[in-house]
Amino acid sequence: MTEQTGSEHSPALLTMDDVRAAARRIRPHVVRTPLLPAGWSAPGHPLWLKAENLQPSGAFKLRGATNAILNLSPGTTGVVTHSSGNHGRALAHAARAAGLPATVVVPDNTPPVKIAAIRELSAQVVVVPPGDRERVAEELRARHGFVLVPPFESPAVIAGQGTVGLEIAEDLPEVATVLVPVSGAGLISGIAVALRALLPEVRIIGVEPADAADAAESLRTGHLVRWSPERTARTVADGLRAPSLGELTWAHVRQLVDDIVQVREDEILAAMRVLATQARLVAEPSGAVAAAAYQAHHASFPHGPVVAVVSGGNVEPSLLARVLTERPS
Amino acid sequence: MTEQTGSEHSPALLTMDDVRAAARRIRPHVVRTPLLPAGWSAPGHPLWLKAENLQPSGAFKLRGATNAILNLSPGTTGVVTHSSGNHGRALAHAARAAGLPATVVVPDNTPPVKIAAIRELSAQVVVVPPGDRERVAEELRARHGFVLVPPFESPAVIAGQGTVGLEIAEDLPEVATVLVPVSGAGLISGIAVALRALLPEVRIIGVEPADAADAAESLRTGHLVRWSPERTARTVADGLRAPSLGELTWAHVRQLVDDIVQVREDEILAAMRVLATQARLVAEPSGAVAAAAYQAHHASFPHGPVVAVVSGGNVEPSLLARVLTERPS
Repeated sequence: MTEQTGSEHSPALLTMDDVRAAARRIRPHVVRTPLLPAGWSAPGHPLWLKAENLQPSGAFKLRGATNAILNLSPGTTGVVTHSSGNHGRALAHAARAAGLPATVVVPDNTPPVKIAAIRELSAQVVVVPPGDRERVAEELRARHGFVLVPPFESPAVIAGQGTVGLEIAEDLPEVATVLVPVSGAGLISGIAVALRALLPEVRIIGVEPADAADAAESLRTGHLVRWSPERTARTVADGLRAPSLGELTWAHVRQLVDDIVQVREDEILAAMRVLATQARLVAEPSGAVAAAAYQAHHASFPHGPVVAVVSGGNVEPSLLARVLTERPS
Repeated sequence: MTEQTGSEHSPALLTMDDVRAAARRIRPHVVRTPLLPAGWSAPGHPLWLKAENLQPSGAFKLRGATNAILNLSPGTTGVVTHSSGNHGRALAHAARAAGLPATVVVPDNTPPVKIAAIRELSAQVVVVPPGDRERVAEELRARHGFVLVPPFESPAVIAGQGTVGLEIAEDLPEVATVLVPVSGAGLISGIAVALRALLPEVRIIGVEPADAADAAESLRTGHLVRWSPERTARTVADGLRAPSLGELTWAHVRQLVDDIVQVREDEILAAMRVLATQARLVAEPSGAVAAAAYQAHHASFPHGPVVAVVSGGNVEPSLLARVLTERPS
């Protein structure tokens, strides 16, 4: 386990109570996703898949967005966010369910399938260059009096994502290692809060594409680094292109996460193929990185069960078709 | 609900006790699959998907095969079956878990991906013309002293499949209509036993490809008909080509099932696409027929929730890729 020093300048971490409150709040609105045994497990490291791609919005993001929406004060007139797609879709979904208008600022390298899905949920979409997303969202918030629901740098969002960790601990208390995709690190922050409370000895490992490994560099150097949007845009994993963690998620990662490993682009695509053909799960590239990390790195994990979070499944059909027809590497 | 007369020559139907015993027996060995809300539901008919493609063997067949294996007498030296693929794969899976040798007779129009999967589970595979499958399995049984575990005409197998119905009733007691793929009718027989006991008013509807509609013709004419294997081989739904029901499953269908509807080949492929892109589920053609029936026929269903059983997901990657790249009809 990592050292848990913190500093007086570091934001306070969430607690298990926050995650439990989120779980009670969102239960009627999200799917309690199954933990599925994978048929291609290596001896000594049985692999289980936490299938968050089966959420109605196609990704775990529905948990945090729903918790944030259900936490709003009664007079709220609308919400706005910036998102590479899945958080925006989730917020649109949760806002529509609550009868609130939603505006979503998306970077212009977001797959069309994700933008179309947000529009179908009655949300307004504003497309901007990747570097402008936070600024434009903030402008819209100020101009219209909306509440900004950020994709990860928010206690309510992190607490909602933490319910994934709560369910893993309930379903597989003997788990030894949990693999979690990292972009802004809202998911791994929430999961780490729940798992450190419930299963203190479990190894929590973040996964990034090597082409967007800002969090790994932060953890290695001990200070929060930022990669340029142009640099993180190289990876096929469009959901993992956030240029850096936030102060709040960085505090969680630094204090609660054991390691962050990297996977190559070809390993991500191979994992998508394995998930589709052997687990019958459609994963987007970002949703496949944890399964890819299992394939690449499991020999170095402690003996015992491994959970890989399949975080989302909103993929362009043409990309999935290509992955299915190319020979596996 | 259908008339429940029966006749003294008709085989006895299974009971809810049989299904409950199967549920207790197989629980540690199968996945309790989720019931997932579908995003493309029509008003008045919310659609839920029972995702049996997420079983470790890729299809509901693992339930019946596991129950049959766990029912064997202690001296059993091996099992044999005939199967278009998914039952064979399930039996191989369950037999390996029990340390028993398995032999699977498959028709020669079975997709290679299904045959390869059976071989990977250490079972022996015997490939024969479609019309010879039952005879060859019987010969192997007699020659080697194996126990024949048929794909559907077996009380233990039907009771195991019935656990799908038990879970539907537990998870969605307000369900109004349940759609179930029909081939030999082991699945719908077991589901109907559970649902008639737990939710007597629910409408139970079988689904067949129009190109393999022997069960619909049997139900319409009131007597068990058989279609030639050459005729049922026309459908892309390779798991639904059994040429007729058995006496036991026919007794269940005749007395417990409300209707059997048909779907076209293009409707099956369109449903595969919708399941992959909007529910993130890989379904094989046979596994997509119930979702296809929802699209084609929901306007005629009683008001209220509809469950479509996604029965399996063992599809050739090239077929799935083709479905994803063709324009939806």
